Amino acid sequence: MKQLELTRQRLMRDLNDMKVFTTTPGKGCTRLPFTCAAQDCSNALKRLMIQAGMEVCTDVAGNVFGRLPGHNRKLPCVMMGSHYDSVLHGGDYDGIAGILCAIEVARLLQENGEQLERDFVVAAFNDEEGMRFGTGYFGSGAMLGLRDVDYCHKYKDIDGISIYDAMRAVDLDPEHIDDARWPDRSISCFLELHIEQGPVLDRENVDLGLVDCIAGIKRYVIKVKGRADHAGTTPMDMRLDAVDAASKVISNIADWARESGEESVATVGLIKALPGGINIIAEECEFTVDIRSRKQEILDNISSKIIEAVKKETNIMGGQYEIEEKLDAHPVYLCKSLLDSMEVSCRNYGYSFKYMSSGAGHDALVIAPCIPTVMLFVPSVNGRSHCPVEFTDVEYFVKAVQIMRDLATSKLSERD
Amino acid sequence: MKQLELTRQRLMRDLNDMKVFTTTPGKGCTRLPFTCAAQDCSNALKRLMIQAGMEVCTDVAGNVFGRLPGHNRKLPCVMMGSHYDSVLHGGDYDGIAGILCAIEVARLLQENGEQLERDFVVAAFNDEEGMRFGTGYFGSGAMLGLRDVDYCHKYKDIDGISIYDAMRAVDLDPEHIDDARWPDRSISCFLELHIEQGPVLDRENVDLGLVDCIAGIKRYVIKVKGRADHAGTTPMDMRLDAVDAASKVISNIADWARESGEESVATVGLIKALPGGINIIAEECEFTVDIRSRKQEILDNISSKIIEAVKKETNIMGGQYEIEEKLDAHPVYLCKSLLDSMEVSCRNYGYSFKYMSSGAGHDALVIAPCIPTVMLFVPSVNGRSHCPVEFTDVEYFVKAVQIMRDLATSKLSERD
Repeated sequence: MKQLELTRQRLMRDLNDMKVFTTTPGKGCTRLPFTCAAQDCSNALKRLMIQAGMEVCTDVAGNVFGRLPGHNRKLPCVMMGSHYDSVLHGGDYDGIAGILCAIEVARLLQENGEQLERDFVVAAFNDEEGMRFGTGYFGSGAMLGLRDVDYCHKYKDIDGISIYDAMRAVDLDPEHIDDARWPDRSISCFLELHIEQGPVLDRENVDLGLVDCIAGIKRYVIKVKGRADHAGTTPMDMRLDAVDAASKVISNIADWARESGEESVATVGLIKALPGGINIIAEECEFTVDIRSRKQEILDNISSKIIEAVKKETNIMGGQYEIEEKLDAHPVYLCKSLLDSMEVSCRNYGYSFKYMSSGAGHDALVIAPCIPTVMLFVPSVNGRSHCPVEFTDVEYFVKAVQIMRDLATSKLSERD
Repeated sequence: MKQLELTRQRLMRDLNDMKVFTTTPGKGCTRLPFTCAAQDCSNALKRLMIQAGMEVCTDVAGNVFGRLPGHNRKLPCVMMGSHYDSVLHGGDYDGIAGILCAIEVARLLQENGEQLERDFVVAAFNDEEGMRFGTGYFGSGAMLGLRDVDYCHKYKDIDGISIYDAMRAVDLDPEHIDDARWPDRSISCFLELHIEQGPVLDRENVDLGLVDCIAGIKRYVIKVKGRADHAGTTPMDMRLDAVDAASKVISNIADWARESGEESVATVGLIKALPGGINIIAEECEFTVDIRSRKQEILDNISSKIIEAVKKETNIMGGQYEIEEKLDAHPVYLCKSLLDSMEVSCRNYGYSFKYMSSGAGHDALVIAPCIPTVMLFVPSVNGRSHCPVEFTDVEYFVKAVQIMRDLATSKLSERD
């Protein structure tokens, strides 16, 4: 059997085998951190790693690592991986596919007797999504020494169970969360293969996305405050209509993103009026804003325009406002030389590719500021993700595995 | 004691006495139709009417009528009144004050031996607000023959109790609702005194509002439909953002009313986005529109502009829309000659007045198309109404009683 066909069959088998690790069978993948579904999944990943000839270890954060020894074991390793947790009723590809492809790269290295100069480590991170505790990047963050006991106590799920208690319930000791931290300079580069979770590659019929940037995000919750009055008896010049003022801001927000280019996006996903009656002028209009861009100055510019507009419109109305910043993450640029290497591989194989930014966060988001990092996207059919219909044809994973294997074996990944 | 002082004291006493008839003592007036509070109130009104020397009768709709005989009892009567029900946690003036003032007019006529040519009838209507069954104008509508048994079966309260069953529970027979209908040409004119429920008279420091029009109302529930996508991974040119499209409509609605004049108002009181997440593009944005104007062409014009804008913006977006018309009530113009007479009275007494339309509906709304009708407004402090802080200084009621008494005794109310 040809190697590509073997890779295709093994990936199909592994992707299929992982589908059982969900607490909502038939209703998508629900694999929240520190649950039985997550533990069963990590054990299955461990078995796959062992079968691929890797040394396997787990850590206190729930991460699983498989290690293929290199010639010089003292050198910083080449790491490839992603996360194995999911959102509620998510899909069967987000995260887990990147781990399975990394294991397949390890298999190919083994089968072809290609021992790298450095160790090749497959990382299966825990709790990237943050779905259970409203956080995220727990496993990769712990690897970088960014999580501590206070953090574990601080965040709780909807049942009031903290990360701390959830860890103890599965025999992980949060008091030793520091043990999950890897020594400085122990990882030379990090490679993450992930589904796009957006529509671009699928719509444009492009094989692979070379992710050169993870977009920065600014998030706000904005409250425009007017006064509740009778919608029939209050003349226009005597009302403080919060919906009127807020809509005059909101109607521009998407346009400001459109004008900005650089793959910038802006979204008002939630809006509500209080008290919310057909015949009552709203005393308050609350809405959320989510702005993403690969350029920090665009994030700053759009958010300034929004804040200015809120001030202006509430001033014209004669009302008040509250602006709460919920998130301010800067854009993270990925490693140029690793991207160059991926581009060369794509051209060699004749695979179509596109440089793009990632609008969603990934483990690479927290790792890239510390370690040279690159991401490779495969198409998501119709851009659907975080839902049971999430799908990527296995052929794209086969192509991505080839690119990643080349990258792992290239001299470019050999850096201190 | 001077007559005005006597009127003032009696109105203060009566307004105060009525406050006890609420099911939410200390939390405003809650006097829903066919409840004990409403029955107790109607009985108290009956006693006041009897004390004022009137013949009293009640009807199957829960209305109470007090009649002061005129010289020629075969002539159509002069009717003055309002409603005695309230909204949930409403105020102590809305409706009930108009009845108490009508009883005071009757007292003044009696005390001064002024027997009118025609009977003077005080009407205390039931269920104008429609708070319990989501309807309204039940008592005045029944008087006009506009309510039948089907209607009583059709509308239910939040506990699933129909008007029909609610009536039977207080020994009113809905099978004989037709008996509440008054004969044609039995009422020569209808006079309604009411609190403004808006801020105009209070802000402009005007004594009385001469209501020449009850504004027409158009109400819509509009759904703009896009597609839910990831707010981070979906480029601006690939998204169908329902909030973006809807806000481009909503941001103009109040301005269209402002530009229209004629006391036109337009309100988006309720807005919501589905599914409603900070990081999810809304697949649907639902909002309500309430448009009121004294001119039908303005109502038509604003609603056309809204519908056009919804079509245009959903078309640009590439989405869909639903527009449901919830109400289409034409403006009702009140009786010019009765207004002229009230103006003459105001000038004689030196009371400041202002012609205005009523943005809210009233019993006069259903009565005016059938019977020459006029309304007189007194100021609502800060325009507050339908809430416990609703307040009107008794001095304004005293002034309004004088105007209404003049009107009742004028030749203008003597029409067939």
